[in-house]
Formats: sequence, C-alpha cells, structure tokens
Amino acid sequence: MLVAIPLYPGFTALDAVGPYTVLAFAPGFTVTFVAPEPGPFTDCRRSLTLTATAGLADLPRPDVIVVPGGPGTLEAMQDRALLDWIARAHEHTRWTTSVCSGSYILGAAGLLEGRRATTHWGWLDGLRGVGAEPVGERIVTDGRIITAAGVSAGIDMALALLAAATDDTTAQTVQLAIEYDPAPPFDAGSIGKAPALAEAAMALTG
Amino acid sequence: MLVAIPLYPGFTALDAVGPYTVLAFAPGFTVTFVAPEPGPFTDCRRSLTLTATAGLADLPRPDVIVVPGGPGTLEAMQDRALLDWIARAHEHTRWTTSVCSGSYILGAAGLLEGRRATTHWGWLDGLRGVGAEPVGERIVTDGRIITAAGVSAGIDMALALLAAATDDTTAQTVQLAIEYDPAPPFDAGSIGKAPALAEAAMALTG
Repeated sequence: MLVAIPLYPGFTALDAVGPYTVLAFAPGFTVTFVAPEPGPFTDCRRSLTLTATAGLADLPRPDVIVVPGGPGTLEAMQDRALLDWIARAHEHTRWTTSVCSGSYILGAAGLLEGRRATTHWGWLDGLRGVGAEPVGERIVTDGRIITAAGVSAGIDMALALLAAATDDTTAQTVQLAIEYDPAPPFDAGSIGKAPALAEAAMALTG
Repeated sequence: MLVAIPLYPGFTALDAVGPYTVLAFAPGFTVTFVAPEPGPFTDCRRSLTLTATAGLADLPRPDVIVVPGGPGTLEAMQDRALLDWIARAHEHTRWTTSVCSGSYILGAAGLLEGRRATTHWGWLDGLRGVGAEPVGERIVTDGRIITAAGVSAGIDMALALLAAATDDTTAQTVQLAIEYDPAPPFDAGSIGKAPALAEAAMALTG
C-alpha cells in the first residue's frame, strides 16, 4: 500500500508524523513525503525541518493520501500544482485523508463539496467556505474521504484507516508496537472539555 | 526554556516529534534538533528525514534534553560525542528525559546507575544492563530524570513536563491547541492489554 504525505511550508509536524508512524510501522505499507518539488520543508513552529523525498509527479497514484494541516494551509490552498495532484490522485486512491486544517486543502482541491468533514475545533465553521458540512467529531468518514480533527487526531485516524485497509489485529499490533496507550495528565484536549482555554489555545496555533 | 532533542540514524520519528510538538507549542520554549554534526537524519523506517539544525557544541546548556529511542539506539550508545554531551549537559539541565529506548542512551551516558527508569515494554528488562531499575510505567520520574515508555508515550511525558516547568493551565492550553483528546479505535496499546500480540509487535520494531 503506497501512502503519500504532501508537505508544504508551515505544516504542523505531528499532523504528518502521527499518521506516518502508524502507517510506516504497518507491514506492506510504504510512506513517502512528497511536494511539488522535493526538498526540505520547515514546520509551523519554524524549528523542525522534514524532507519531501519525492515530487508529486513521482507518485501519481498513491493508495492513500494524508494531507497535514498547519498555519501554512492558507498558502497551500493556492498551490495549483498541489491541488491538481490531489484532485487527480484522488480519482484512484482507496482513501484520501487529512488532519487538522488539511481538510481545507482537500476542500480547495474540490473534494469536499457537499461532504461531511472535520478539522481543528478552532476552524470548524470555516469548512463551509469550501463547500463542506462541518462535523465536530474526531474522525469523520464520508465515502473514501476521511478527515481528522486537530493535530494529534491523525494518530487515531491512521489506526482506524489501517484496520480498514488490513484487519483489526494488524492495527492493534501496530498500536502495541508504538505503545499507544495514551494517558494524558489532563483531560483538556477537546473544546467541550476546556472551553475556557479556547482563546489562549488559538493564540498558540498562529 | 531551551529544549534540545538529539537525533541519530535510526531514531523513531514519533519519539522525537511527539514531545517536540508539545514543547514547541508552549510559549517561551525553543526546541532545537541537535546532533554531533548538524544535518539530515533518517528514521528507523528509512522513509522520514529530519534535520538537526545545530551541533551539540552549539547547545552546551539546554534546560531540557529529550532523547528519542529507536533501533538506532544500540549504535548511538557507542557515540562518545553524544554520550559526553549528554553527561555534561545533564549537570545543568532542569530535566533530562528520554522516550522509548532513548533511556538506554541516558544509561550509556552514566545517568541511570541505581535509578528507576522505563522504556518500551519490549526492552524493559534490559535496562538493568545500564544499571537502572526497570519500572513498567508509562512515565517514570527519578529526580531530574524522566523516562517515558514506547514511542507515543513521549506526548504524555512532555505534557507532564510542561506542567512542571510552567503550570497546569499552560499544559492544558497546549493540550487543547493540539487537540490531544486521544480516542484510539482499539484498547491494545500496552503489553498488559494485548499480551498475545507481543511477538508480532516486536517484529515490527526492528
């Protein structure tokens, strides 16, 4: 199974590396970071640089696409080469997916018209702007399109995708291999659980 | 607060990028990927390349060290430049931490003699080889040394560390910013929960 993760300036690292880790640990999966032109891309915190090892043209037919989010999304939504690749590749993918504001890029590529989709809680309503019906859930599946909520939600999404692509046992085996038995020290990870922190949290995402 | 994350060939990406994301989102934190020589480092799946932007000598006095694990640990345990830097930097850190088999590198640097520490469930007993007392918990704190269990445990560890370094509200705000409200589709993330998958999971970590 070929997985392509497009990078662009200002992506959020965990959006990409969470699903990457789940899928790259899975037997028979090959995950490649791609971009219009191969090369290094610096993340939204300007302190992490990940390399796209292939151009979009090198991977025209991935089985799975995972589009990360991040403050760079707005600029990526104008990148015709990226959007055209997503639109064309999507015709043949088994699943086309996004994490966080990556769903806006799917939308800009014309994939979310009339579809249910999610994103980071702070940008949920804006999904209407790309024709989607915003759904405030951690993972939203609409046909072959799977969108995940903010940043860390990509890990959960990738495990569900892996189970669908293989079987529950394979996904559980990867979960055990990466010891994903989450135990956050606080219960403040969704807007419903920590509404008072919304403004401060959004200030950190810029 | 200056955070240094050393990279080496064969590190596991999420070990580094999980804590990176938590700490790089925190106000007042600067996170730098370091190595004996700056440059690109390829991960344990051989399909992700992250750049160390600074040499060890450029960052002699970080406040926090986070050492990732991965199959490359064994070779990194022989890297005198890395071990000497860890040992010297540790004299001045507020916290010296590791994720997964990164604790073996702390051990090789002489930091775990007689200390309680943890690592990935599959390598727990071996920690005695570096003089540590293995503890099968997700996060183990012994003085200024914090060790986390496998791969994804670094996210939880970094949130706890952030709360200790700042306050609960700051850690909760970052948790909300990265929407860390984990909802794995299965409950198979620890060896106690999925003992029958141990052999298959270990086969994936090589």
